[in-house]
Amino acid sequence: MGIKPTHGALVIIGGAEDRDGDCVVLREFVRLAGGMKAHIAVMTAATGHPEEVGEVYIRAFKRLGAESVEVVGTERRKDSECEEGIYTIEQATGIFFTGGDQSRIVEFIKGSPLCDAIRKRHQEGVVIGGTSAGAAMMPDEMIVGGASVSNPSINAVSMAPGMGFLPDIMVDQHFAQRGRLGRLLAALVLHPAVLGLGIDEDTAIIVKGDEFEVVGQGAITVVDESTATHNNLEGLLKDEAIALCGVKLHILPSGYRFNLKTHLPVL
Amino acid sequence: MGIKPTHGALVIIGGAEDRDGDCVVLREFVRLAGGMKAHIAVMTAATGHPEEVGEVYIRAFKRLGAESVEVVGTERRKDSECEEGIYTIEQATGIFFTGGDQSRIVEFIKGSPLCDAIRKRHQEGVVIGGTSAGAAMMPDEMIVGGASVSNPSINAVSMAPGMGFLPDIMVDQHFAQRGRLGRLLAALVLHPAVLGLGIDEDTAIIVKGDEFEVVGQGAITVVDESTATHNNLEGLLKDEAIALCGVKLHILPSGYRFNLKTHLPVL
Repeated sequence: MGIKPTHGALVIIGGAEDRDGDCVVLREFVRLAGGMKAHIAVMTAATGHPEEVGEVYIRAFKRLGAESVEVVGTERRKDSECEEGIYTIEQATGIFFTGGDQSRIVEFIKGSPLCDAIRKRHQEGVVIGGTSAGAAMMPDEMIVGGASVSNPSINAVSMAPGMGFLPDIMVDQHFAQRGRLGRLLAALVLHPAVLGLGIDEDTAIIVKGDEFEVVGQGAITVVDESTATHNNLEGLLKDEAIALCGVKLHILPSGYRFNLKTHLPVL
Repeated sequence: MGIKPTHGALVIIGGAEDRDGDCVVLREFVRLAGGMKAHIAVMTAATGHPEEVGEVYIRAFKRLGAESVEVVGTERRKDSECEEGIYTIEQATGIFFTGGDQSRIVEFIKGSPLCDAIRKRHQEGVVIGGTSAGAAMMPDEMIVGGASVSNPSINAVSMAPGMGFLPDIMVDQHFAQRGRLGRLLAALVLHPAVLGLGIDEDTAIIVKGDEFEVVGQGAITVVDESTATHNNLEGLLKDEAIALCGVKLHILPSGYRFNLKTHLPVL
């Protein structure tokens, strides 16, 4: 649970973070990246509109005072062997993944030389941030799609291997705004014994070692599946309603901290 | 918790129940009302379209074989003194509240002679059913409005006294379909130490004594606030995000039973 204390922090954002106003969430990312001395690499792999999306983050991070902001665009897997991109990562003090489709991040980057460079920088203490799709890809197993505002069934969620920056965790984004409790619970029944984190829009967790802290407008919904006393997964068909008894729930707004190892809020 | 064992059952439906097909939910209501010998009173107080809505349930209940179905329309408080309506209730073996606006049910009926007649029949063992607004009005304190798909804040919910057929319980309807976890949690923080029941569409709980059983397509989300270890209600302003730690959650589809006294699923 959590990440090694020597590794850089993770800033996992539920999407639709403020980029023009106070930028409460992005501000924390830039601070962790070195503040006025930050060199930020913006990874646009997830989006089909890398130029527009890249431009938005260049503007936001520069306005907050980052020293340099470079877009690392990967529109196909081959782009993740490009030396220019790898060089940008090697110089970066903060690496930020934009929104889009989380499957593209895994497909274009995972296991590539660019991926190795990112992991190396993370091990050296560089912060990795991601919003929406860039948040979804953080765990070992990621939610790639499924129904919003539905009760839990196997049909309600589809999953695939993620980037694995934050193990033993399930992440869902736009959580309250899209009513995604059902699909997060379905994901947890399919991959039990992990914590599910539902992250609201304009809200983030900042993970350092075994703990995370919440920043932003909304809240984090922590679903602790480890206390479950019963589920009906055995023999369940795809469209049948899931039963799940005894899971624990924590709703944590800005300022609250949670220990990923003990599964308890730090009060 | 629960209702007295001598009282009639309660059938609390999350709205949008099937009325033209298998009628899995309404079928159980008619069965509890006496099956082929059922005399059903349809209460249309909640709706601004009492004739159309009444007609829908007359058709559905007759198709399922009820012996008689009568609409008791109350479009203002004065109508709840009408002897004809009271007589219909006195003869009824099942009383069903339609959807609409739950505030109208309380405003037009609560504390009236019609209300006394309904309570008397319930004490004598007659089943009371309700869908959507007719479900919302069941508890002592009812949710009358608020935001769907939002994270919990005091703003997210507005409450008022309900009819009190099922005490110490909070009910929300169209639960998964409208992503209402946030507002149910907000309601529970405002009125703690009760169970919150989120009822999906075309899904119902059948309450008998201390237990309920689930029927229908979706699931019941039980939120047990009594295990909560922390909330931030003290000093909280209306638009600020609620914190709530350590509540227990059970997702119960069709066939599952739950004990309202022990707060435990009957497995």
